[in-house]
This record gives sequence, C-alpha cells and structure tokens, in this order.
Amino acid sequence: MPRGDEKRLTPQDEDFSAWYNELVLRAELADRGPVRGTMVMRPYGYRIWELLQGELDARIKATGHENAYFPLFIPESYLHREAEHVEGFAPELAVVTHAGGKDLEERLVVRPTSETVIGEMFAKWIESHRDLPLLINQWANVVRWELRPRLFLRTTEFLWQEGHTAHATEAEARAETATALGFYSEVARDVGALAVVAGDKTASERFAGAVTTMTIEALMRDGRALQAATSHFLGTNFARAFDITFTSEAGVLEHCQTTSWGMSTRMIGGLIMGHGDDKGLVLPPRLAPIQVVVVPIGRDAERAEVVARAEALAGELRAGGVRVRVDDRAHLSPGAKFNEWEQKGVPVRLELGPRDLAAGVATVAERLGEGKVAVALDEVVATMPERLAAFQQALLARSTAFLADRTAPAASLAELAVAVGRGFASILHCGRVECEDTVKEATTATPRCVPHDAPDEEGPCAICGQPSAYGRRVLFARAY
Amino acid sequence: MPRGDEKRLTPQDEDFSAWYNELVLRAELADRGPVRGTMVMRPYGYRIWELLQGELDARIKATGHENAYFPLFIPESYLHREAEHVEGFAPELAVVTHAGGKDLEERLVVRPTSETVIGEMFAKWIESHRDLPLLINQWANVVRWELRPRLFLRTTEFLWQEGHTAHATEAEARAETATALGFYSEVARDVGALAVVAGDKTASERFAGAVTTMTIEALMRDGRALQAATSHFLGTNFARAFDITFTSEAGVLEHCQTTSWGMSTRMIGGLIMGHGDDKGLVLPPRLAPIQVVVVPIGRDAERAEVVARAEALAGELRAGGVRVRVDDRAHLSPGAKFNEWEQKGVPVRLELGPRDLAAGVATVAERLGEGKVAVALDEVVATMPERLAAFQQALLARSTAFLADRTAPAASLAELAVAVGRGFASILHCGRVECEDTVKEATTATPRCVPHDAPDEEGPCAICGQPSAYGRRVLFARAY
Repeated sequence: MPRGDEKRLTPQDEDFSAWYNELVLRAELADRGPVRGTMVMRPYGYRIWELLQGELDARIKATGHENAYFPLFIPESYLHREAEHVEGFAPELAVVTHAGGKDLEERLVVRPTSETVIGEMFAKWIESHRDLPLLINQWANVVRWELRPRLFLRTTEFLWQEGHTAHATEAEARAETATALGFYSEVARDVGALAVVAGDKTASERFAGAVTTMTIEALMRDGRALQAATSHFLGTNFARAFDITFTSEAGVLEHCQTTSWGMSTRMIGGLIMGHGDDKGLVLPPRLAPIQVVVVPIGRDAERAEVVARAEALAGELRAGGVRVRVDDRAHLSPGAKFNEWEQKGVPVRLELGPRDLAAGVATVAERLGEGKVAVALDEVVATMPERLAAFQQALLARSTAFLADRTAPAASLAELAVAVGRGFASILHCGRVECEDTVKEATTATPRCVPHDAPDEEGPCAICGQPSAYGRRVLFARAY
Repeated sequence: MPRGDEKRLTPQDEDFSAWYNELVLRAELADRGPVRGTMVMRPYGYRIWELLQGELDARIKATGHENAYFPLFIPESYLHREAEHVEGFAPELAVVTHAGGKDLEERLVVRPTSETVIGEMFAKWIESHRDLPLLINQWANVVRWELRPRLFLRTTEFLWQEGHTAHATEAEARAETATALGFYSEVARDVGALAVVAGDKTASERFAGAVTTMTIEALMRDGRALQAATSHFLGTNFARAFDITFTSEAGVLEHCQTTSWGMSTRMIGGLIMGHGDDKGLVLPPRLAPIQVVVVPIGRDAERAEVVARAEALAGELRAGGVRVRVDDRAHLSPGAKFNEWEQKGVPVRLELGPRDLAAGVATVAERLGEGKVAVALDEVVATMPERLAAFQQALLARSTAFLADRTAPAASLAELAVAVGRGFASILHCGRVECEDTVKEATTATPRCVPHDAPDEEGPCAICGQPSAYGRRVLFARAY
C-alpha cells in the first residue's frame, strides 16, 4: 500500500531499536537537544507527560503528600556524606564550577536525585514526633550524565517526581515504600494499560544508599524489561548522614526512618515500546493527547459542509469529555492523514464524507481493530466513552497476556538464556552476586525483581545449585 | 494581647524588609537552600504556585499554545549568537565545565532563559508558512546568579513559564505579545487581586535582545514597584541569529517574527508584599491553599464532640469546592492557632465551641475584618462561596485604591523624589537614558513603564525640559 511521501517505519522484527528511534522522531514525541544526550519533549510527547503527571499527582496528594520544590544545585560535599550514595552517582554527575563571572569556592552538583539536599532541609524542619510523618513530593528535572543516551529511556536530563518522606518507625517507613509502589502499579496498569510485575530488587540492583528497593518492571514488545518506577526504604542511612532526628513521645532523640520513590519521563518510553507496532504508537486512551481524530473527507463544494459537520461532531464529543482533533488540513490526502494519526497512536478515527453524512453515519476505525464500521452519528457520540474504556481494557489485557506468555521458568543457565531471549526468566536464585554476574556475562540479562505475588518456593539455584534465597523465584531479563 | 510563644513580626513601618524576610520563613512559604541564593519552596508556598500555575496554564492553553520541554543545558556558544542577549545575561550565568567524570569540550550554560535553545529547535521544525504560528510554552526552572538574593524576588534558581512563539508577520507577533500581557494582567488582577499597570518598557529596561518589552507593574505596600511579568516582541533578532526561516505562500524564504514572555515565582513575592500587613500574609481566596480554617474549641469531654462537628462542617464546605483545613491540634491553644492562621493569610476562620454548637452557629472571623460574627451553621456553608468572592473583590478594590492613591504626577526632579517615596511618579519624559540616569542617581527610582491606558499628553521633560517622547506620561518608581 502506498503511504504517500511518508517513509515506512523500520519493522520491529527487523530492528526494534531503529523502529523506536524513528518513531519517537516521526510521531513528534521528542527531538534530540543540541547538547549530546539531552532531549526536547515536543508538545505531543509532553502532553502525554502532563496527563501522566495529573494521574500520579492526584494519587500522591490523595495519600497525604504535599508538593514542594528544592534547589537544583547541591554542594558537592553533600553527596559524600552517604558513602554508597556518592559511589553510585559520582560517575554521572554534572558539575558547575563557575557562576556569576567567578570560579566557585565549592563545586556544585546538578541534582541527580535529591535525597541529600532534602535530607539537609528535613533535619532543619523536623524536631518532634509531632512533625512526623513528613510526606513530601517534588516534580523536577534531574541530570545524570549518560554514555549511551536514548530518547526518553536514558537522557542526560529527565523529568520526574521524587517523593521523600520521614517517619518515626521502620514499620511506617516500610509501609510508605509499599504505598508509593502501589500507586505506581496502579498508574502503570489502570492508566498506562501496561502489565507490570511488582517486586523487590536484589542487592546488586538497589538504589545507592537504600536498604531495600521495590520496583515495577514492564515488558517491552521486543522481550526486554523496563524498570518503570522504584520505591526505596532508606532506613536511617540518610538520617544518620544528615542528622535527621526527632524527639519521641518518650522524650528520646531518635533518627528518622526515611523513604524515597520516583517515576520519570522514561515511562513514556515504556508506553511506546510496550504497546507500539509496525504502524507506530498505540496510546492508551487515558494518556492519549488526542483520543479521537475526525477526518472530514470531501473536495471543493463538499469540503465546507463536511468540515462544518466534523466540527459539530467534535464539539459534541468534547462536551462529553473526549479529547478530539478535527484534521481539516486541505493540503493532505485522507490516506496521508490516516497514516499520520495511526503512527501517532490515536485510539479512534472517525471519517466523515458526503456519503457518510447522507447516511447519517460516521465511519469508525480503531487503532487496534481490523477494518472499519459505519455507526450512526448520535450513537458514535453516546458510546464513545465506552468505546475508549473498552480500548483501554483491551490494551491492558493484551499487555497482561503478553507478559504472561513471555515469562518462563528456567532450571539452568541454558534454559535461562532461551527464556530471556523472549522475556522474563523465572528462576530459583541463591542471591549471590557471583551468580548474577555469571548470568550477565553469558546472556546480558540482569535480575529484575523478586516478585511480591510469587508463590513460596525453594530449591537449588538454577545457576550454581546452592540453596535458593528469597523463598520464591526471581525474574531475570535483558533490560533497558 | 499575648501571642503565646510566637515572636511578634517586625512591623512593616519599622522595617519592611525585615517584615518580609521574617514572614516568608514563619509562614513556611520558603526557606533558604544550602547554596547561597537558592530557595526551598515549602508546601504552603509551593501550593500557591500550583494554584497560580493552574490559572495561568488554562489561559495559555485556551489561546492555542501547547506546552513542551527544552533542555536545561545550553552550549555557551549559543548565547553569543545574539549580541545584546549575551551582554545582558553573561554576568549571571552558571556554567557546567565538568560532567560524567570528564572536563567538557564546550562549556554548558545552565539556562537563564531559553530563547537560544528554543530558537535552534524552531529553526529545525519550521519550514513552511503552514508551520506558523508556532505557539509553545514551557514550565521550567532557570538560573541567574544573584549578587543580592531575596526569597521569591531574586533567587539564583527560580521557577517560571516561558512562552516562545514564531509568526509569519510582525503584526501577528506584536498581537501575540499583547495577548500574553493580557493573560498576565488578568491573572494578576482577577486571580491575585493585585492592581497592576500594563505598559511598555523604555529602551533601557528592555529584555536583552528584544525590540519592545511590555510589562505589568504592581505596587507593594511600602510604595516600591514590582515587575510581575513581561512579554517581549523580538522582531527578527533571534530568527536571524538562529536562522528561523519559513517559505511564504508566495514561495519566498523569510525570517520569522518571534516573541517570548514569562511569569515566575517572583509573583508570590508580589502577593506577599502587595497584600500583607503587620499580622502577616493576606491571601486572595483564589490562590489561598487554605481558604477556610475551622478551629474546634473545647477541652476534655467536649473535645471529641467539637472536633467531630468541625470535621462535618469542613466536609460540607469541601463538597462545595472550598479548600478547608480543620486545626484539631491538641497541644496548641486557640489563640496560638488564630495567630498562626492569620500569619498564614487564611481568608476566613470559623471557630466552633460548645456554646456555638448549642446555638447552632459558627463564629466567623475574616482576615481583613474587625471582630467576629455568629452565623448559623447552614448559612455558613451556603454563603461561603459568596463570602470568598466578596473577600477577593475587596482585596482587589483595596489594591486598586492603593495604587491610585500612591501614583502622583511630578513636574520636576524634586517632585518626582517626593512621589517615588510613596509610589509611582507620573512624568513627562524625553526618553533619553541620560535623564533616566539622573533620576536613578538622585532617587534610586527607575522608569517602570509607559502605561498603555494613559491619555495622550505632551510637554517638557520633567527632568531636562526637552520635548517629551511616547506621547504620554511615564511611570517611575523605586523597584524590587
């Protein structure tokens, strides 16, 4: 089928990476910035982020957290106060050495994450048990110098939210870590229509400075995993480094128990690779900047009429809370428009031509459907919310089935190698980093998580045969 | 009246600057960050920003602009492409020289504003007249190294939105500049309850690289002006520097006409100083994080009952869209709570004690009112939206009257010196920078703007006697 002057996307099976890079640019989600590794989020991509932000922010606020804003620049010495933290982040730092026309006395780090500067402020604000829990979230940009940058997935600067909380007891802080992971899972599944596995990271994959790290892991269409969000129980590691203390009800000075958790613009990469196909993006309706595109079809004398009717139809849909665009560009053919909006992942397309109008129908095509159907105009409007909800459900069902189909148990390194070629390998694992390294060298796969909902199981490690740790299976995969 | 253990704020008349600094910290709007000149926006202050963002973002989107996000880091060479621009910003730049463990080949500037990097991207995206107008907005942090930092007013890093647009004709771009100033005026007046004067900057106060700069100027309670937002017509200055061209309908390659415009967290400083009094903040209801605070009053056996009734009342108000807080802290006296919420500028306080409950009333105190009144509970709920709207209107009326009262014509430097001691001096001005310098040296006042709505008037310059420029009077003031 001719596609006008639009070049064909490289098929996923041919080169998934090329498919991804082409699609991000052609769908106008993002562009490369002038500085290597930086990204420009174009309006279409940024709007997805705004919709995701709105969903996540509502859940963060509903659970008692308040937004605040902390400085971009952190004195370099702060990072050194928590030994594991600086070791983890030092190689990725961008450093300001010069400002206001002078060399600075102390170098300033551009925040790679804000535990240190927020820890310093928490220490100042928290005095008594009455000040706890302190539940703070920040929407911000962060910088981590990337050697192998990729749009959305690994960019030198990215946008995220980072929650930071302080509690009187370990139990409360651990519960908070789970609460945060809970709304990440909910947003991924119910909003992003992405199946995810929630679990704990093994020691080697923990956040630098954390006692435990929880994660949600999604599976991309090429069988690689993507860490979509993480939530960390930090124990008293940062409280000790920054002297975050409180006087308990009993009058005793104690260190706070802290947590941190974040989801970033990387999630958009997950949506692209988790749902997209050879035609382009497939966006879940709840995050689609345009849920319905109306394409009026007609030339010359007919044109004014169909455009007017398309605008009227769009107005009715809009009144029902649907995000609609009428594509009335005169210089493009209908076919070129169809391809463009398919590539941009718009869930529903309505075609409106003179014959449709005469019959009182619109021709409806869904992004994941085959063919088109004629639907009465008033019914199109009345049923659109259900149609979009059904699309959302079908996309989640597809993602859930895909993840289940691509997860396989493995009892040896050879079996694991086969499984991670398709998706997740589920293995009994001794928990030693030596075995993880063996897997990584042989297959490039890494431990993704110890799933929270896996059944109890013990036995010999699939790699070394020593007794398994964790009391359940561990998921390995090649990952982004 | 005893104020518990809360220290008295320094009165405005005694030391306005001390009043401001104390209030920002005590009302928990913001705190100083660890790096000199940086600011932490605490939840109460950040919530005001979120409410302001919501109002402004809705207006930006309603006028056809789309949000996007551009990189924080800009190659230093970009700033040099527009000669006036680099001259204006060079002294304030923070520079990254080191990243990812290595010295960088090209130094990176942390964006002080984004005309350059956005110009580079516009050049890439715009080809034809069909791509115009391009109407983009960005919510972001920017960095300008400040020698004399003050919380909200001048911080090394601040949050803002920056609109950037490209047009085919000068007339369209000039109209866009006015559109942006229009929604700034509307937000300042209708949302912030701050009277502002909208006008053009004189040449000496223009944005570095602009052809014309429009501004809205508010008057603080100490008689100093505050520039609350600006909108710039950039002509083809940046289009030439970054090669932003388009092919016209006639097939001719032309430079675009561009604009930029911004409002920042500085506006919060304007709200504090434009409305506050010796008791503390006075927040306009539309931007108040808490519009109504309910203070249950009762001890021991009574306490549970009044707290329950206060929660029920708050629930009813919340259902009506009112932002309410119940202050049921047991360890503070009612008087201490009254002072705290007055200092935090909450528009309406409802006291609920056993006698109120017995009489079926709440005791109502407004932040700007004298004394208290008893109002039937159902009436309190039913009339709260009107009460808040009336408060909002009264605050704007007070601000409008204040600005009018503090604006005086002046026909000489001596008269100007008196006028700028109270507020705005309105003078006929020759337009020469020499006269502006004379005023500045004698009084520290600067030209704030040539008001758009001033009547036509000409005559001798108040300073030098030469013929006036602009065809109308110019406002001078001491400014933040």
